[in-house]
Amino acid sequence: MKVAIIGGTGYGAIELARFLKMHPYAELTTIISHSKNGTSFSEVYPHMTDILELPMTALDIPALSETIDLVFFATPSNISKELVPEFLHHNVTCIDLSGDFRLKSSEDYEKWYEAPAANAKYLAQATYGLSEIYKEEIKKTKLIANPGCYPTATLLGLIPAIQKGWIEPNSIIIDGKTGVSGAGRGLSLNVHFSEMNENIKAYKLGAHKHIPEMEQVLGLEANEAVQVTFTPHIVPMTRGIMTTIYANLSGSIDQENVQQLYETFYKDHPFVRVRAEGVLPTTKEVYGSNYCDIGLHVDKRTGKLTIVSVIDNLVKGAAGQAIQNMNIINGWKEISGLDYPPIYP
Amino acid sequence: MKVAIIGGTGYGAIELARFLKMHPYAELTTIISHSKNGTSFSEVYPHMTDILELPMTALDIPALSETIDLVFFATPSNISKELVPEFLHHNVTCIDLSGDFRLKSSEDYEKWYEAPAANAKYLAQATYGLSEIYKEEIKKTKLIANPGCYPTATLLGLIPAIQKGWIEPNSIIIDGKTGVSGAGRGLSLNVHFSEMNENIKAYKLGAHKHIPEMEQVLGLEANEAVQVTFTPHIVPMTRGIMTTIYANLSGSIDQENVQQLYETFYKDHPFVRVRAEGVLPTTKEVYGSNYCDIGLHVDKRTGKLTIVSVIDNLVKGAAGQAIQNMNIINGWKEISGLDYPPIYP
Amino acid sequence: MKVAIIGGTGYGAIELARFLKMHPYAELTTIISHSKNGTSFSEVYPHMTDILELPMTALDIPALSETIDLVFFATPSNISKELVPEFLHHNVTCIDLSGDFRLKSSEDYEKWYEAPAANAKYLAQATYGLSEIYKEEIKKTKLIANPGCYPTATLLGLIPAIQKGWIEPNSIIIDGKTGVSGAGRGLSLNVHFSEMNENIKAYKLGAHKHIPEMEQVLGLEANEAVQVTFTPHIVPMTRGIMTTIYANLSGSIDQENVQQLYETFYKDHPFVRVRAEGVLPTTKEVYGSNYCDIGLHVDKRTGKLTIVSVIDNLVKGAAGQAIQNMNIINGWKEISGLDYPPIYP
Amino acid sequence: MKVAIIGGTGYGAIELARFLKMHPYAELTTIISHSKNGTSFSEVYPHMTDILELPMTALDIPALSETIDLVFFATPSNISKELVPEFLHHNVTCIDLSGDFRLKSSEDYEKWYEAPAANAKYLAQATYGLSEIYKEEIKKTKLIANPGCYPTATLLGLIPAIQKGWIEPNSIIIDGKTGVSGAGRGLSLNVHFSEMNENIKAYKLGAHKHIPEMEQVLGLEANEAVQVTFTPHIVPMTRGIMTTIYANLSGSIDQENVQQLYETFYKDHPFVRVRAEGVLPTTKEVYGSNYCDIGLHVDKRTGKLTIVSVIDNLVKGAAGQAIQNMNIINGWKEISGLDYPPIYP
Repeated sequence: MKVAIIGGTGYGAIELARFLKMHPYAELTTIISHSKNGTSFSEVYPHMTDILELPMTALDIPALSETIDLVFFATPSNISKELVPEFLHHNVTCIDLSGDFRLKSSEDYEKWYEAPAANAKYLAQATYGLSEIYKEEIKKTKLIANPGCYPTATLLGLIPAIQKGWIEPNSIIIDGKTGVSGAGRGLSLNVHFSEMNENIKAYKLGAHKHIPEMEQVLGLEANEAVQVTFTPHIVPMTRGIMTTIYANLSGSIDQENVQQLYETFYKDHPFVRVRAEGVLPTTKEVYGSNYCDIGLHVDKRTGKLTIVSVIDNLVKGAAGQAIQNMNIINGWKEISGLDYPPIYP
Repeated sequence: MKVAIIGGTGYGAIELARFLKMHPYAELTTIISHSKNGTSFSEVYPHMTDILELPMTALDIPALSETIDLVFFATPSNISKELVPEFLHHNVTCIDLSGDFRLKSSEDYEKWYEAPAANAKYLAQATYGLSEIYKEEIKKTKLIANPGCYPTATLLGLIPAIQKGWIEPNSIIIDGKTGVSGAGRGLSLNVHFSEMNENIKAYKLGAHKHIPEMEQVLGLEANEAVQVTFTPHIVPMTRGIMTTIYANLSGSIDQENVQQLYETFYKDHPFVRVRAEGVLPTTKEVYGSNYCDIGLHVDKRTGKLTIVSVIDNLVKGAAGQAIQNMNIINGWKEISGLDYPPIYP
Repeated sequence: MKVAIIGGTGYGAIELARFLKMHPYAELTTIISHSKNGTSFSEVYPHMTDILELPMTALDIPALSETIDLVFFATPSNISKELVPEFLHHNVTCIDLSGDFRLKSSEDYEKWYEAPAANAKYLAQATYGLSEIYKEEIKKTKLIANPGCYPTATLLGLIPAIQKGWIEPNSIIIDGKTGVSGAGRGLSLNVHFSEMNENIKAYKLGAHKHIPEMEQVLGLEANEAVQVTFTPHIVPMTRGIMTTIYANLSGSIDQENVQQLYETFYKDHPFVRVRAEGVLPTTKEVYGSNYCDIGLHVDKRTGKLTIVSVIDNLVKGAAGQAIQNMNIINGWKEISGLDYPPIYP
Repeated sequence: MKVAIIGGTGYGAIELARFLKMHPYAELTTIISHSKNGTSFSEVYPHMTDILELPMTALDIPALSETIDLVFFATPSNISKELVPEFLHHNVTCIDLSGDFRLKSSEDYEKWYEAPAANAKYLAQATYGLSEIYKEEIKKTKLIANPGCYPTATLLGLIPAIQKGWIEPNSIIIDGKTGVSGAGRGLSLNVHFSEMNENIKAYKLGAHKHIPEMEQVLGLEANEAVQVTFTPHIVPMTRGIMTTIYANLSGSIDQENVQQLYETFYKDHPFVRVRAEGVLPTTKEVYGSNYCDIGLHVDKRTGKLTIVSVIDNLVKGAAGQAIQNMNIINGWKEISGLDYPPIYP
C-alpha cells in the first residue's frame, strides 16, 4: 500500500517516515512540503541519508490521489480541514495528526483554537483515533482525528477508572510534563537550548487546546460532563510525556481493585503496559517506542488515586499511534511496523 | 563571627561555603568531615581551588565550641539530633539543614523517618526556619530546623491563601519537580546520568518525608488539620524546584484578589517575588539565588487556584535560607551575603 | 539460531537484547548474570516489560553449550579471557565485546590493561571485528574481538587515508568525545548527573586502553609503526561518540581527492555514510543506529586533513557491530536485524 | 562611576548587568537597546525582576556621553566600529565585546569577517584586552577590544609555552568545545533544544573568525608567524568552553618543567588557576565565574604537550573579562566585583 505524508519538515513527519521505512505493508512514496518543495528529505534530515532519498514535492491532490491510498497530515492546525474533503472525495483515507477534526463541537473548536472549525459534515465523519479505546470505530472510518499527545497519555490513564465510576469526574487534576520536541521544530525562545536547558516552564494554564479534547472524551466515557484542571510543563529533555493525574476515589476502592481493573482492561492491548503495584514508569522506559506505561497509586490516607502515565510524545503521542490506526483500518496486525523495543538508556 | 559546617562533602556544604565566602560578617573557619578528615576542601571540590583551602577536620565539640559561635549541620538525617544538645550546652547556635528537628511530633517523626525522634526537650526548643513567615521566632532562637526544599517552595506558595481561608485545606495537591541535585552527592542509579538524562521519574508517592512537614505548618496556619497529596518528580536538570500547587477556591475569589493578597503579603520580603498577572516563573529565573518566585492562576471555569512556586533547591531550599536565618538571628540585614542576582542563562 | 549473552546487567547487554529481539534469524534464549542470577531481565530493565521476560541464570558452560551456537560477552575486562577457551572447546562461536582479545601483543595488554593477557594461543585465533575492514577474516573465525567504541569511529575515519599513504602516520591527533553511557552502568562520581550535567571532562590523557588498539590496527594498515595522541572527553549526553581526527597531509591532496577516496572506499558498505563536501555529521544523526558517518575537511592553508567521525557508542561502538559480525560469520545479509533508521530528534 | 551597556538583549548584556549589579565602584545607569527601546530590562529578563528595573533606551551618543564615563558594547559584529569614534571623541572609554577592533590588519578583518574593517586610526588605538597578558597596555587605553571566548581560553593556555619557545608554533591544533550560549540568544536550528540536546556538532572548520585572532596574538608572542588548526564544536550544555590544545614539544621538556613554568607565570594572576600535575580542570569548575583553569600533560611517548584550558564563555570569555579590564583601566583591584566562587554543582 502506498502512502503520502503532507507536512514533510516537522517532527511528526520524521517519525512517520522512520516507522514507515520499517513497515512490512505500507510504502512511503510521496512527501509533500510547501516550503521545501524540490529538496530531498535527507537534505533537511541528514540522519536519513541513504535511507530515504525522496525529493519533497508540492501538493496536487488529484494526481496524488491516483498513486496513493492513504495520506498522513503532519501539518499545523488549520490546514487539514481545507484538504481532507477533497482527499475523501478521491477516496483516499486520511489520518490527521493535527487538531482540526478532534473536537466534535464547532463552538469548542472556535473557542479553544480561535479559528473557524472544519465543515460540520466532515467533523461528524471523523473518528477519534485513540486506538485502544475506539478500535471498532477506527476499523470502519476513512478519516482519523489522531489524538493529541497529552490526551493520549491522560485518557489511557483515566478511562478504565472513569468508565467504572470509581473516581469523581470533576476532581480530576492533570499535571503534564513534556519534552521540548512537543513544541515542534519551529523557532522560538521556548525551544532555545540556552533558555530551556536547566529549566522547567509551566505554560498555557487553563488555556491549552488539549483541555476540550480530554473533556470531550472523558465526558463520553463518564456519561456526564467533565471539567478537568490541566497544567502543561516543558522540562529539559527532547522526548517523552508524563502526565501525573490526581482524582478523588468515589468509594472504598483499594490498590488491589485498581490494579486488577487496569490489568484486565488492557490485557489484550499490546502497547499499554500496566505496571505492577509499587512500580511507576518513567518516560525513558518508553523512549522511541509506541508504548504507554501506566502506574497506579491509591493513597488511603487522602482517599485519592494518582495515575502516572508515560508515552513518547512523538510516537504513541503522534506518529506511532497514527501508524497503529493505519494498521487497524487496513486489518493488519496492530503491531505491524511498531514492534520495536524502547531505546534505553 | 566565626562559623563551622558539619558534613563537609555534600552539596549543602558546598553552597554554604560559597555563600559564607561572600558574606560580609561571617567567616567560615572550620569544616568537619568524618569521611574526609585531613583532606583539603578544594581537593574534594576543585572549583574551590585557591578560594577555600581549608583542611577538613574531625569533630571535637568542646574544642570547636571555643572557636566558633554558630554551626551549620549539612548532615544526613539522624546525626544532628545527637550533636545539637551538646553544642547548645556550649552556647553555640545551631542551624540544622537536616530534618531531625522539623517535626514537632515525635510520633510523626518516627512514622515518616522510620527512626527514633530527637529528644523532646530540644524538639520543643527548635524553631522552624521558614524565614519570611517565622522571622520573629527566628530572631530569638538558638536552634533552627531549616525547612526542606519542597516545603519551602510549597509553603511560601500556599500560606497567604490558607491563612486567609481562601482555599479548601483538604483539596490541596502538590506536584513537585526537582533537579537531580536534590538527591545529594551519594551514588545510586537514581542519580546516574545515563539513567536520568532524558527522563522524568515520579517517586515516593504518599511517602515522602516532606509531607508531614508541610501538613504541620499548613495546619498551624489554617488552624485546622490539613492533609495534602504530594507527588515529587525528578527531572533531568541539576538545580531547581518547581511546585505546581492546586487547590479549590472556597468562595468567589478572582485573579485580582489573589494577586493583591500575595503582593501585599510579600511586599517587605526581598527574596519572594510575586509575578504579575499572567506571568509564571521558571526555575532558571532563580538559578543560584535565594529567591522564591511565585505565579498565580485562578481558573474561573473550574474554580481552582493554581500556584507555581520556584526556588533553587540548594539555595532557598537549603543553604541560602540557612544563611538568611543566620542573618536574622544576628540582627544583620536579611540579605547580607545573599544579594546576588540569579545566573541566567 | 540460538544465542546467549554473558553479562546481563550492563548497557552492552541491553543493546544486544534490543537488536536480537528484532533479528530475523537469531533468538536470544539465555542471559547469564552472576549478580542477578534468578531475577527477570525486565525487572532490572523495566523498559523490556512484556518484551523480554527472561530470567537471568548462572553460568554452566557445558549445559549452555548444548543449547546455543553463539555467545556474546558483554562483560568487563578480564572475564572473557577465562571463559572463551571452554566455549570454543564446545564449538560455540564467541563474540567478545570486552578488550581481552583485541591486542595481539601480550606485553601491550599487560602494559595498558595492567593485568595478565589471555592465553597466546587464543589471542592468535582472535579476529579483530572491525566489520567493514576485516570482513573476509571475520567470515572464517570462531572468536571475534569486537572493537572498542573510540577505535571503531577512529579507524573507520582513518583507514582509507592511511592505507593510501596520504597522511603522515605520526602526526595523528585524535580528540574523542563520548556520551556518559560509555562509562557503563556502574556507579561513580564520573557518571553522577549533578557532576556531569553542564560539564566537559578530559580523562586518561595518554593512558587510555584504546590507544594500543588504534595503534595496532593503524600500524598494520600503514605498514609501519604508528603512534597516536588521543584525548578522550566525556560530554553531557547519554549516547554518541565523535572523534575529531587531525593529520598532516603528505602531498598535494585536495578536498576532492579525499572525498572521492572515501566515497569509493565505502560505497559497498551500508553502515558507513561519507558525507558530501562541506557537510559534517553530528552524533544525533546516528543515534540508536549502526551507522558510522564521516565528514572530511582539507585545510589548504595549514596542509591538514580533519576527519569527523560519529557513531552511537552503544551500537556501532559495541552491540550493533557485534550483531553485524554475527551476521557476517553466519553468511546472513550484513544488515539483518540492524536496518533501522537513527532516531531523530 | 557610571556606565552604560549597548546591546541590551543579548547574553553579553545580561552577564554584564549581573556583575555590574555586584560591583563596588561602577553603577549601571543606562542600557541601550534598539529593538527593545522603552521596555524594562526585567521584562526581557524576568530573573532580574526587582533587581534591575531599568527601562531600555535608544542611543543618543552626545546625551549619553554627558552622564557616563564608560560604555560596554555587547553588540553583534559591525556595529561598534561605527559608534566607537564618536564615544572616544566625547572622551568615553569603550570596551567592545564584539570582534570589530580585535584584528590589527584590515585585510585580515575583511577576509575573515567578510565586511569592511573599522577605521585604521581606531584599529591602531585599540588594545587587545587579554587582561593577564596585556595589563600594562590596558591601564593606558581608552578602547578595549575584548577577546573572543575561544581565544581567551586558548591564548592563556598557550602563551607561557610559546613565549618560552618550548613548542613548535606550526604544530598547534586546537580542539574547542563550547556550550550553546556561545551562539547567542538569536534563533536558529543550531540552538534549537531538540536539535542540540544529545548532540555534538563540529562547525566552521578552518573558517572561524577566532582563527586570525589567535594567530595574531600567538605570532606576537612567538616572534614569528603562526598558523593554527582550530575546530570548534557545540556540545549540549549552556555555558562553558574547553579548549584541548596539542603541540609538539621542541626539546626535552618534561612535565615538571611545564608545570613550573605555568605556575610561575600565573602566580600573581588571581583568575588563572594552574592545576597540579595529573589534575585536569572541567568546565563546571569555573561555572559562572571569571576563572580560567589550566591543566597540563606532557606525553613522553609522543613528545607532545596537551593543554586543557577551561573558562565560562560568558564570563572570562566575555562579560567578566570586560569588567576585569574596566577594573584595570580605572586602577581598581583587578578582582573588584568579580571575586565570586564558581557555582557547583
